[in-house]
Amino acid sequence: MSNNSKLTLEGQALLVISAQNKGLGPLDRDLRAEEIAQLGWNLLHEDLSLPVAVLQKEKLEQNLAWMQKFIHAHGVELAPHGKTTMAPRLFEMQMRGGAWGITLATAHQTSVAWRHGLRRVLMANQLVGKQNMALVSRLLEDPEFEFYCLVDSADLVHQLSPFFAQRGQRLHVLLEIGVPGGRGGVRTEEQLQSVLDVLAESSSAIALDGVELYEGILDDETVVRAFLDRAVAITKRLMIENRFDRRRPLLSGAGSTWFDVVAEVFSGADFPQRVEIVLRPGCYLTHDAGHYREAHAKILERNQIARSIFVGLQPALQVWACVQSVPEPTRAIVGIGKRDASFDLGLPMPALHFRPGEPAPTPAPSHWTLTKMMDQHGYLQLAKEDDVRVGDMIAFDISHPCLTFDKWRIIPIIDGSYKVVDVVQTFF
Amino acid sequence: MSNNSKLTLEGQALLVISAQNKGLGPLDRDLRAEEIAQLGWNLLHEDLSLPVAVLQKEKLEQNLAWMQKFIHAHGVELAPHGKTTMAPRLFEMQMRGGAWGITLATAHQTSVAWRHGLRRVLMANQLVGKQNMALVSRLLEDPEFEFYCLVDSADLVHQLSPFFAQRGQRLHVLLEIGVPGGRGGVRTEEQLQSVLDVLAESSSAIALDGVELYEGILDDETVVRAFLDRAVAITKRLMIENRFDRRRPLLSGAGSTWFDVVAEVFSGADFPQRVEIVLRPGCYLTHDAGHYREAHAKILERNQIARSIFVGLQPALQVWACVQSVPEPTRAIVGIGKRDASFDLGLPMPALHFRPGEPAPTPAPSHWTLTKMMDQHGYLQLAKEDDVRVGDMIAFDISHPCLTFDKWRIIPIIDGSYKVVDVVQTFF
Repeated sequence: MSNNSKLTLEGQALLVISAQNKGLGPLDRDLRAEEIAQLGWNLLHEDLSLPVAVLQKEKLEQNLAWMQKFIHAHGVELAPHGKTTMAPRLFEMQMRGGAWGITLATAHQTSVAWRHGLRRVLMANQLVGKQNMALVSRLLEDPEFEFYCLVDSADLVHQLSPFFAQRGQRLHVLLEIGVPGGRGGVRTEEQLQSVLDVLAESSSAIALDGVELYEGILDDETVVRAFLDRAVAITKRLMIENRFDRRRPLLSGAGSTWFDVVAEVFSGADFPQRVEIVLRPGCYLTHDAGHYREAHAKILERNQIARSIFVGLQPALQVWACVQSVPEPTRAIVGIGKRDASFDLGLPMPALHFRPGEPAPTPAPSHWTLTKMMDQHGYLQLAKEDDVRVGDMIAFDISHPCLTFDKWRIIPIIDGSYKVVDVVQTFF
Repeated sequence: MSNNSKLTLEGQALLVISAQNKGLGPLDRDLRAEEIAQLGWNLLHEDLSLPVAVLQKEKLEQNLAWMQKFIHAHGVELAPHGKTTMAPRLFEMQMRGGAWGITLATAHQTSVAWRHGLRRVLMANQLVGKQNMALVSRLLEDPEFEFYCLVDSADLVHQLSPFFAQRGQRLHVLLEIGVPGGRGGVRTEEQLQSVLDVLAESSSAIALDGVELYEGILDDETVVRAFLDRAVAITKRLMIENRFDRRRPLLSGAGSTWFDVVAEVFSGADFPQRVEIVLRPGCYLTHDAGHYREAHAKILERNQIARSIFVGLQPALQVWACVQSVPEPTRAIVGIGKRDASFDLGLPMPALHFRPGEPAPTPAPSHWTLTKMMDQHGYLQLAKEDDVRVGDMIAFDISHPCLTFDKWRIIPIIDGSYKVVDVVQTFF
């Protein structure tokens, strides 16, 4: 992380927490994150206005360490997908933990990361549109900034090339490989050749530095492996054809579901020159108790190294909300809605039950189920004999961290005693 | 809108637009909304970084005027649900347009509204939790601030009463009526009586000012009417029992789906004293082209006054995104994802197609369909012969404005020539 840029400092200045954010304690004025950590807020002392999203410090650290061990054991690099959290303070934690860089999805996200000191970004997306190109062009004026984005069509290269040529800049790109029925990426030999041809003509403005794919759209391991093998074969061919500008070409893949298979296939391939293999999972840092817990269980089944690393990934993000009403013996209305937690890959799951004044939360009974979320409310299904009252606090585990993070502008980090020890700010 | 409060001014100061927000044009530094309107940005000149959400000024104004006419014709009051937009600049527009107040869902939202000058809030929710009560208590120190929230259990009144009594404050509440299988609100005579009993004991700290319901959870008009009739009957009974503290008790209902029926039933009821009927639709301001278009069509069928008002509600909120890749003849990958638009009541719908450099957008063919959204991407289904290229801009109509607004911190307002004439900031 570079700290000597004027714009970095501007970025840091913006880590002031506005008293207008939800999920904070009483604040008379805006404070810096460091100042908030000094206030001694404790979730169980009712110091925060619910609903609130919280990150658990120990679990974040465990997850960071787990992934670094995994990456190290496979001899590959990690560029965690930052779109998950869009929290520069977490990017910083990931970089300090040994990440090679941060992956992002858009020019806007890249710009935010750069303002907060990031100097190596893999934008795992096509750079399209005049202002998005202009945003990136401006960042490229910083000679310390290393940036890669994707190309998968001659059309796109034809748009990028004059734009960056005119500015005397050179854009570094990876060739995206795709599958029929998938997202971006060249499908056919004909498409591949047409991109290569125009890249060859555009080499003064566009440097081809590697190959990229995103296998996360696939459900079947055999298909994933075939896709990875194809990327390996294309990478070898482009090496032989001397197409790459980078001394060690980049080969990048892996979302949070198949990173073990990607690590195994890519690191096991025999290339005619050294490659830098960059994996891009985003959800490992907070993990979850739904979609990615299931994905992780499969990774542990498949991958011996993953199994050997202590404890595995832990869900580190929860949303806490109050019971507002118990209008029927088996129904509580809780102040958690679609505005507060993701719902696209499963609704939040009750994890803890806490009655203010009691010493500690207890695990939520397994029969408690959130059956529905409206914008600001959740319906919690209970058994008739359950002791749930208005004012009780319920902690929910979530499924799909990405779409929970983007509902919060600030997220307190708590320690094992539920004390707020830090605050992260998001930039969506 | 009061302008003489120190905190109002703090609020205004926060209407500075951070250059770190997505969906803006090139910004070297933070600017006030007014300054941004002076920059002459035009969406069709590619002055904005896509994806971007935009509000259409004329349609907003039409919708504002339509609803005011509707409300006026029924002799009722309007407290638009502000949780939809959480945009103080739009609240201000609604208040100038004659709204009685703003409805909100949480203490945090109420606090944001007050900071931005709002002085009458109906919080259509229970006030639960120590810090949420503290937030409201602090706002009640402002003698100009008029605030109502809901109670539906003796338990809740038992928690509110000592809290506000201790502060020497009086909290004004509405009794929430609910239906079996619904959200909050008393279901049974026994529940009703227990709330009334404890309210009678707590009158020094809690003032009962009216009756409230939310009929939006119901699908059937007959059931809605029966629910409304029950609220009317309870209101009459409480008048006769002299339970209300307010000279003109409040009677409030209506989301965006049944507001015509609520207006009709409530305004047609014969009460023994005058009531103030307050409707709370939130989605009318921007409307949509999906869920609420369908709901509005039914309102126009049911309600003669609604039919008589010129033009009806118009969808005023769109999300524009770039085509990033056309990897297969019938598939374009567009830079619009779950991070950019709502998807819970239908995916965004292609409305316009614009190729930069051409004079004007053309309507998107009706066979274009967004078939899937990932976090940052959408899959656009085309016909083989369609002329769609990388870099083309697509405008999408949306379904469910609430869950589109909360994905944007700033939203430009454009005029009929796509020029940015204002910017609204959201506070979620």
